[in-house]
Amino acid sequence: MPDIAAVKAALTDQRIETPSWGYGNSGTRFKVFAQAGVPRTPFEKLDDAAKVHEFTGVAPKVALHIPWDRVEGPGGYAKLAAHARERGVRIGTVNSNTFQDDDYKLGSVCHPDAKVRRKAVDHLMECVDIMDATGSKDLKLWFADGTNYPGQDDIVARQDRLAASLATVYERLADDQRMLLEYKLFEPSFYTTDVPDWGTSYLQCVRLGERARVVVDTGHHAPGTNIEFIVALLLREGRLGGFDFNSRFYADDDLMAGAADPFQLFRILHEVAGNGGFAPGADVAFMLDQCHNVEAKIPAVIRSVMNVQEATAKALLVDRDALAAAQAAGDVLGANAVVMDAYNTDVRGLLGEWRQERGLAPDPVAAYAACGWQERIVTERVGGRQAGWGA
Amino acid sequence: MPDIAAVKAALTDQRIETPSWGYGNSGTRFKVFAQAGVPRTPFEKLDDAAKVHEFTGVAPKVALHIPWDRVEGPGGYAKLAAHARERGVRIGTVNSNTFQDDDYKLGSVCHPDAKVRRKAVDHLMECVDIMDATGSKDLKLWFADGTNYPGQDDIVARQDRLAASLATVYERLADDQRMLLEYKLFEPSFYTTDVPDWGTSYLQCVRLGERARVVVDTGHHAPGTNIEFIVALLLREGRLGGFDFNSRFYADDDLMAGAADPFQLFRILHEVAGNGGFAPGADVAFMLDQCHNVEAKIPAVIRSVMNVQEATAKALLVDRDALAAAQAAGDVLGANAVVMDAYNTDVRGLLGEWRQERGLAPDPVAAYAACGWQERIVTERVGGRQAGWGA
Amino acid sequence: MPDIAAVKAALTDQRIETPSWGYGNSGTRFKVFAQAGVPRTPFEKLDDAAKVHEFTGVAPKVALHIPWDRVEGPGGYAKLAAHARERGVRIGTVNSNTFQDDDYKLGSVCHPDAKVRRKAVDHLMECVDIMDATGSKDLKLWFADGTNYPGQDDIVARQDRLAASLATVYERLADDQRMLLEYKLFEPSFYTTDVPDWGTSYLQCVRLGERARVVVDTGHHAPGTNIEFIVALLLREGRLGGFDFNSRFYADDDLMAGAADPFQLFRILHEVAGNGGFAPGADVAFMLDQCHNVEAKIPAVIRSVMNVQEATAKALLVDRDALAAAQAAGDVLGANAVVMDAYNTDVRGLLGEWRQERGLAPDPVAAYAACGWQERIVTERVGGRQAGWGA
Amino acid sequence: MPDIAAVKAALTDQRIETPSWGYGNSGTRFKVFAQAGVPRTPFEKLDDAAKVHEFTGVAPKVALHIPWDRVEGPGGYAKLAAHARERGVRIGTVNSNTFQDDDYKLGSVCHPDAKVRRKAVDHLMECVDIMDATGSKDLKLWFADGTNYPGQDDIVARQDRLAASLATVYERLADDQRMLLEYKLFEPSFYTTDVPDWGTSYLQCVRLGERARVVVDTGHHAPGTNIEFIVALLLREGRLGGFDFNSRFYADDDLMAGAADPFQLFRILHEVAGNGGFAPGADVAFMLDQCHNVEAKIPAVIRSVMNVQEATAKALLVDRDALAAAQAAGDVLGANAVVMDAYNTDVRGLLGEWRQERGLAPDPVAAYAACGWQERIVTERVGGRQAGWGA
Repeated sequence: MPDIAAVKAALTDQRIETPSWGYGNSGTRFKVFAQAGVPRTPFEKLDDAAKVHEFTGVAPKVALHIPWDRVEGPGGYAKLAAHARERGVRIGTVNSNTFQDDDYKLGSVCHPDAKVRRKAVDHLMECVDIMDATGSKDLKLWFADGTNYPGQDDIVARQDRLAASLATVYERLADDQRMLLEYKLFEPSFYTTDVPDWGTSYLQCVRLGERARVVVDTGHHAPGTNIEFIVALLLREGRLGGFDFNSRFYADDDLMAGAADPFQLFRILHEVAGNGGFAPGADVAFMLDQCHNVEAKIPAVIRSVMNVQEATAKALLVDRDALAAAQAAGDVLGANAVVMDAYNTDVRGLLGEWRQERGLAPDPVAAYAACGWQERIVTERVGGRQAGWGA
Repeated sequence: MPDIAAVKAALTDQRIETPSWGYGNSGTRFKVFAQAGVPRTPFEKLDDAAKVHEFTGVAPKVALHIPWDRVEGPGGYAKLAAHARERGVRIGTVNSNTFQDDDYKLGSVCHPDAKVRRKAVDHLMECVDIMDATGSKDLKLWFADGTNYPGQDDIVARQDRLAASLATVYERLADDQRMLLEYKLFEPSFYTTDVPDWGTSYLQCVRLGERARVVVDTGHHAPGTNIEFIVALLLREGRLGGFDFNSRFYADDDLMAGAADPFQLFRILHEVAGNGGFAPGADVAFMLDQCHNVEAKIPAVIRSVMNVQEATAKALLVDRDALAAAQAAGDVLGANAVVMDAYNTDVRGLLGEWRQERGLAPDPVAAYAACGWQERIVTERVGGRQAGWGA
Repeated sequence: MPDIAAVKAALTDQRIETPSWGYGNSGTRFKVFAQAGVPRTPFEKLDDAAKVHEFTGVAPKVALHIPWDRVEGPGGYAKLAAHARERGVRIGTVNSNTFQDDDYKLGSVCHPDAKVRRKAVDHLMECVDIMDATGSKDLKLWFADGTNYPGQDDIVARQDRLAASLATVYERLADDQRMLLEYKLFEPSFYTTDVPDWGTSYLQCVRLGERARVVVDTGHHAPGTNIEFIVALLLREGRLGGFDFNSRFYADDDLMAGAADPFQLFRILHEVAGNGGFAPGADVAFMLDQCHNVEAKIPAVIRSVMNVQEATAKALLVDRDALAAAQAAGDVLGANAVVMDAYNTDVRGLLGEWRQERGLAPDPVAAYAACGWQERIVTERVGGRQAGWGA
Repeated sequence: MPDIAAVKAALTDQRIETPSWGYGNSGTRFKVFAQAGVPRTPFEKLDDAAKVHEFTGVAPKVALHIPWDRVEGPGGYAKLAAHARERGVRIGTVNSNTFQDDDYKLGSVCHPDAKVRRKAVDHLMECVDIMDATGSKDLKLWFADGTNYPGQDDIVARQDRLAASLATVYERLADDQRMLLEYKLFEPSFYTTDVPDWGTSYLQCVRLGERARVVVDTGHHAPGTNIEFIVALLLREGRLGGFDFNSRFYADDDLMAGAADPFQLFRILHEVAGNGGFAPGADVAFMLDQCHNVEAKIPAVIRSVMNVQEATAKALLVDRDALAAAQAAGDVLGANAVVMDAYNTDVRGLLGEWRQERGLAPDPVAAYAACGWQERIVTERVGGRQAGWGA
């Protein structure tokens, strides 16, 4: 059986990155429901993210999304980074956005028109500038590029344009900066998507160089896809850049991580644990990428961080010696039972203990509810324009 | 073999209803791309719809969506209906909207709070008033109601609230007005949807009465679902109210009808043809429900109408005597071949002929492009606020 | 919080039925792998099933499948029932088979040829005779009927034939016997399936009478289908006949119940608990329907029974007052947390206790492994023909 | 517009390979329905395949499956190849089978036990021997390897074993022989499959060498997967080995190619045409891989060959200059219309003409029905053991 002290040490080493956009308003194409107290600025988003870290102790990094988190004026991003540090957090990935400008109707880095591609690449370059200014090490790229109708554009020509665009950006990166390339089955493109699966992302990364890696967003796969298999494969290739955790029942539903299929989340983290993904050198980023359309935002982020942490704890509890022995013996039920024993364990006590050892309240959700922050932001954040996907 | 004159007569009887929202701006949660010349008012939407009818000859009905097509002032809807008639079209279904008000965050007619349900029912009552004012015979209901997380609300209690809300509205209908209840697998609700499948819609309809019927939206099913089977079953039960035609590759992608799977569209219309659905008394509404995010809107509607018409022509060409004989003989390949022969026929010549016999240009897309309307609306519709989902 | 004594009492009342075919050889279309010690006769299957009941205490019923469990000679079925009683178990459902005769290539009760339909109905009548002889109260029907190619047969005519065939059999049932009608998305029919979804099964049942009910097989749905929603709906209508529990990752994979998605199994049983499905009068049959292609059979059945029981215990632990309060307040996260608290509880200790109170070993898997039965059947069951799907 | 003579020339160059197992009995795990006249030996399968070529003129190659087509005795395979040549056909791919021996319950080339892996590799070596003896140039590999339960085996270790096993076989190939590696989402493994997607197959092939290539089986993808995108990508990488054509509505249903989604088949061949896949040097194998469970076998193969040919003809008819111009202009509807114009064309007349120019009957299905072969084989092939998957 795994040593509890070792499990706790591994939990202490884990960092879960929360997304700035998880604190703002969000919704579906049908409606964005506004919530009271939502941040108006990137600085206020960092304030909220700092609360999540304050109560969980494992969320010190915050992802930015440009232009939603654009800061105007000279030294603006340095101020933002300093603000983060003052609150006890720091800037994580910088996420680009090449899908909300009218020019991008038919694509961005894959667009048939070189002028539009140039504009998109310029935006990615700006994102690297922001990385330099904020100390971010990871450029995370997701492209809405694709087509809606058969024949609309040439699939292979679009891959060529993608490769050329990415190569330009990759050369601009500093030696300690990485490019993380996300894939997605569909949406907002409905016929072809230019990076629809891990294979396409992997192919593009390999051509770019060692510091280009694949991001696995748990909501971006076809039904029936075995996500943990992909995770294991990418770890085998040294190409797993990180995760965008969230939940889905059918499509990219952006529900709280662990909400729809906690067993799947556990299986994914079990592969991470078994293939060295928690080791420091592995450099796997554990990020949330989700929105909270109908539920309270900060508590939803706290709950999501806890869900990832609970699944991690269970994965660390798997008795790997017993598992290896059962696998070698071809003992199907025995091997499965080893994994299920860990999954069926209630780790909430263990995690409460771990928190108390670090001076945290054992129940982060209750502690946040009691701390008065929610009441304060509802009162103080009046006027201005609430942050959201479009802002 | 079917008689060509009979096929042409059946084509002449068909009416395809176009949606007012298909002429306005639309998009995904990521971005709505504006297009030049888009209508600013319901009156301008009817102008565009009239063009579609002018060139196709089979689209004399236009669906309204309230509040997107709300007309203020006394007699406003009568004026709208008169405007339609002047343009050679008329009002088809009236579509309700109980998903774009902040009160509806947790549902409308299924909401736990009776006040919100009352508000939603009042809106549906307003829609019936608009039916009275415009001569519309069909109230089409689609509800975004559902939940995002297990436990969020009680599934059965929500069904009870749905039934009670619908009963109130059903009683308000005149004897020649119908209630058409649409179902949808998911979105914008992601865990449960209160009317997720034809069975749920059917159950609710049966409890309401004879004039409550199920609407089949071709984009609203789980992968692998045989939609034409559902169509056949509902025709057998006398409960098929009509179709919302559109295309999808994965989810409710709202692409042009017939664009993603023209063979499926044909199979659906083959079941309609084989089970009396084209007969006058069948009262099946053939509606489009789709948006045109990246393509030109009026030409896309024209193309969609043509796609439905082409699939209808093919379905009418099936040699039903030969089919029945092959089926009775257990001749699998022979029966399939009868159906495929009709599908593989190029009916564009036949339809061009049919159009010319009725004084229409043989190619509606080319005729529209040549008529100058597009240039005129781009020039004239400047200023004001373009219509879209939110307006 | 639920009272632990009440939870234990409810667990004591639960009956989980195991399938005779779960003890025999099985596989895929690619290969059936034989296992040592597999039963050669229905009597030996009952012996194995009795072991499962002996160690779990909740599996006293065994489903028969005809003709796989056909017993020749006068009084044969009475002897089989007596054999069961001697072993401490009894006959549960009788399952028909109208898919393994060459006559059924194009269907059975829906076949275009009346002679084939008559043959199929005769077989169903034989199954009712066996119910009479064994004391079984439930006729469980699953039909492989359907078509592989568009046009192969007429969808509506097949529904009519289905209805007529079932009506004949329903009339033959005694007043305390029920007809349970299972639905399945696809396989072995690949284009249409004659009972593909709950709605079709429900429709047929309603026409038959009060004692016709729908069976939910957890492996028989399209991806994205919310099974617990269907369960709640059928309980609302009083038409849930029971479950065929098993697991699937993609299709009807027939893995151990709870193996692929334990959270889904919990959510299903949560709806059962919340809608009176565990009440005695509800008469919901909790059955396993699964095969064990690569794992040891009896331990796999024991594990499956335990998985259903663990999920039941968790469902019973949901604090329904707290849940109702959170739902009424529109507290999305609070309501979800109530459900998740129960799910995250490790109930293995509670169940061990419950077993010990009833004189059972706390760990049924270990107790079975230690009891010597497996070694004995491997030694003794030599020669003869191992039972399987085809035998 | 494409030149009709050029289209006909391209059609003349196409070769469609038919599978020996398509002529034998097949079915599902529920039942194999025997058909009269089915071959008893590989020689008789070749006789049937020769008939398909005789009437279509484009099916001169026949795939073998070992051990189903094993020929005993010295010189057996040379005799088989000679028999093929005498009938006017020749041996195409050799297909391995490492899933029907009891040793393979937990896998073959990925099995945890080195002895089992060795046995599987030996079988693959035997297949290469058969290639040498028959003149076959392609070893086609599909592995049933995988696991059914989480934890059952180690995902990465299995990849390593796969790589090592394949490397051994790859080295054995002659310089003009290729290894074609097929992927499949699921079945008969239900939790993990060791080669589940094109990315995994690609990775393995790249490590092996230039003559290892990916096979795309059209039935082996998750719902929503864009198969033509994968085809285009693999052509871009020079790694498309060929196709296994068949149809599916939900899973690997093995229906006739083009039966379930003829538009998809066209789109796939459109990508082949647009990316040089029909050029002689491209060396893309166009194979059928399907079974005929309920329909007559030889006519079903003829129909499938015709369906591939019709889709090819349509793909060749796409006006690529017009398409490129519309794409460059961002004309979404125009580009789509170019593709749809080709698809909507009825090419049966053109193909009838092409056949008559080559001395063939214009309608191969009718010509086969009239030729007397079916009656002859039903009469003559009596006794012996009908070929099937297990034989």
